[in-house]
Amino acid sequence: MDYLLLVDILGVIAFAISGVLAAMRKHFDPFGILIIAFVASVGGGTLRDLLLGFPVAWMRNMTYISFIIGTTIFAIIFRKKLSYFRRSLFLFDTIGIALYTVVGVEKAIEANFSPIICVAMGTLTACFGGVIRDLLCGNIPTIFKTKEIYATACILGGTIYFILLETTLFKEFSYLIAGGVVVLARTLAVIFNIQLPSIYSSAESED
Amino acid sequence: MDYLLLVDILGVIAFAISGVLAAMRKHFDPFGILIIAFVASVGGGTLRDLLLGFPVAWMRNMTYISFIIGTTIFAIIFRKKLSYFRRSLFLFDTIGIALYTVVGVEKAIEANFSPIICVAMGTLTACFGGVIRDLLCGNIPTIFKTKEIYATACILGGTIYFILLETTLFKEFSYLIAGGVVVLARTLAVIFNIQLPSIYSSAESED
Amino acid sequence: MDYLLLVDILGVIAFAISGVLAAMRKHFDPFGILIIAFVASVGGGTLRDLLLGFPVAWMRNMTYISFIIGTTIFAIIFRKKLSYFRRSLFLFDTIGIALYTVVGVEKAIEANFSPIICVAMGTLTACFGGVIRDLLCGNIPTIFKTKEIYATACILGGTIYFILLETTLFKEFSYLIAGGVVVLARTLAVIFNIQLPSIYSSAESED
Repeated sequence: MDYLLLVDILGVIAFAISGVLAAMRKHFDPFGILIIAFVASVGGGTLRDLLLGFPVAWMRNMTYISFIIGTTIFAIIFRKKLSYFRRSLFLFDTIGIALYTVVGVEKAIEANFSPIICVAMGTLTACFGGVIRDLLCGNIPTIFKTKEIYATACILGGTIYFILLETTLFKEFSYLIAGGVVVLARTLAVIFNIQLPSIYSSAESED
Repeated sequence: MDYLLLVDILGVIAFAISGVLAAMRKHFDPFGILIIAFVASVGGGTLRDLLLGFPVAWMRNMTYISFIIGTTIFAIIFRKKLSYFRRSLFLFDTIGIALYTVVGVEKAIEANFSPIICVAMGTLTACFGGVIRDLLCGNIPTIFKTKEIYATACILGGTIYFILLETTLFKEFSYLIAGGVVVLARTLAVIFNIQLPSIYSSAESED
Repeated sequence: MDYLLLVDILGVIAFAISGVLAAMRKHFDPFGILIIAFVASVGGGTLRDLLLGFPVAWMRNMTYISFIIGTTIFAIIFRKKLSYFRRSLFLFDTIGIALYTVVGVEKAIEANFSPIICVAMGTLTACFGGVIRDLLCGNIPTIFKTKEIYATACILGGTIYFILLETTLFKEFSYLIAGGVVVLARTLAVIFNIQLPSIYSSAESED
């Protein structure tokens, strides 16, 4: 069993749902929803593969597209149940970045890139799909909302994943632990309203 | 005679004009207009070539750039005649997506990708240049306007093109028929105000 | 000593500062600032490398990332000194496009592309990072502000650089001269409020 593919597909599902939810808030038509679900799911991985010089994963393996289309249809049908939870978009987006951070770091490690590039690839895989999703829906990308820990959670999770792989004790659970750290970091930050320390004095006003 | 190149160049001309019209509405300066004409023309094909792992077409063949510059100068000079028809942007954009859908499907077939990826590449080739054009001009991308059949027309035309290639009867006319379907689908949809069935009940309001 | 790498790194520094200044105006948190500094610095070069079919420079050479992180920390610490000059963003952005124009033209020449593609690569290397920076910060890309000579300065500088390389007299100073032309063209245009001749009659109003 290829664990990395499994984690990747779970990320595809989570981001496809986040895309459907974001597109439905803007009342896009069914094909518009599918397109947003698609770019949210594959956007980060596509940029990562282009940068790493890999063939683009979803072009060669029909599993990705099948799951995106299936998830989109599922999410449209059960949209009322999904929207019932006001924070659904937050939830699926957070699960998505946790899973994709791990996938991105792992792929860069496979290609023998340096640690800092590996963590950067994890962060980029996790964040880029959501940035395009938000831009296409006309929203401010979540990544740049100052009130939310987002890229910071990915950088943290990616770094921990990288360190765990070097240990002998937690190697098998590194996926789980690193992913959990991303989810926890972001969720706790939102619940307890934790932000990175501000570098702006109160006298500096936004222009 | 390379028919695919001909169709591609006709698409370049149509999209360059659409770019000039969109940029002039925002009163961009001549070089700004050229840049919008350029990204509208080559945006979709560039992303397609990067995804397929092909060398980027317009980088190797000066025909593309020559036609973009020529068309831009022509369109700026005759801008009043072009703008005379209020729906000029719609017209050239529609011709552009029809031509590019066929080109995109064909290129993906050449590279032996699966049918669904071929149709996706056709749609992406057709739609991505227009998305960048609209984003750079500060407009909502036409593709996401719920009142217009856009990506849907490309997916329909791409699928028909793919099917026609399998037939023996209409193979030679497959370019024409598939392109015509895209133009017809989008034009009829706008004239008769046809939309995809809404999945939103009247009780669900946009937030 | 590799002059091209030196020019490239100076461009990285200038664009990283421009990114920090742009992100701080929007009150992004420290990691958000780092991300904007990062995309402003490497955005143009990344697209250029992907289009030319080169491996992406900053992925293989840690010098880039080190300078981006170092510059970002430096710029955040000395933000008040940097912001003291109201036109700081303009200054660093202008230096950045001057340096990157030269780098982009040079890289395309190395890969044996035709002159017009070389100048296009110079312009794209110079302008694309700033476009992403501005889009992500929610600003109108500077490149499309009709009141500023921007891409025009890059096209001019890139063309002059290309011509100087053909001469025997000024070959060694071609970096300096071409870069100076870009800075001068843009600065003089802003100071003396020079614009490209308008193609719009006063009767044509923006819609």
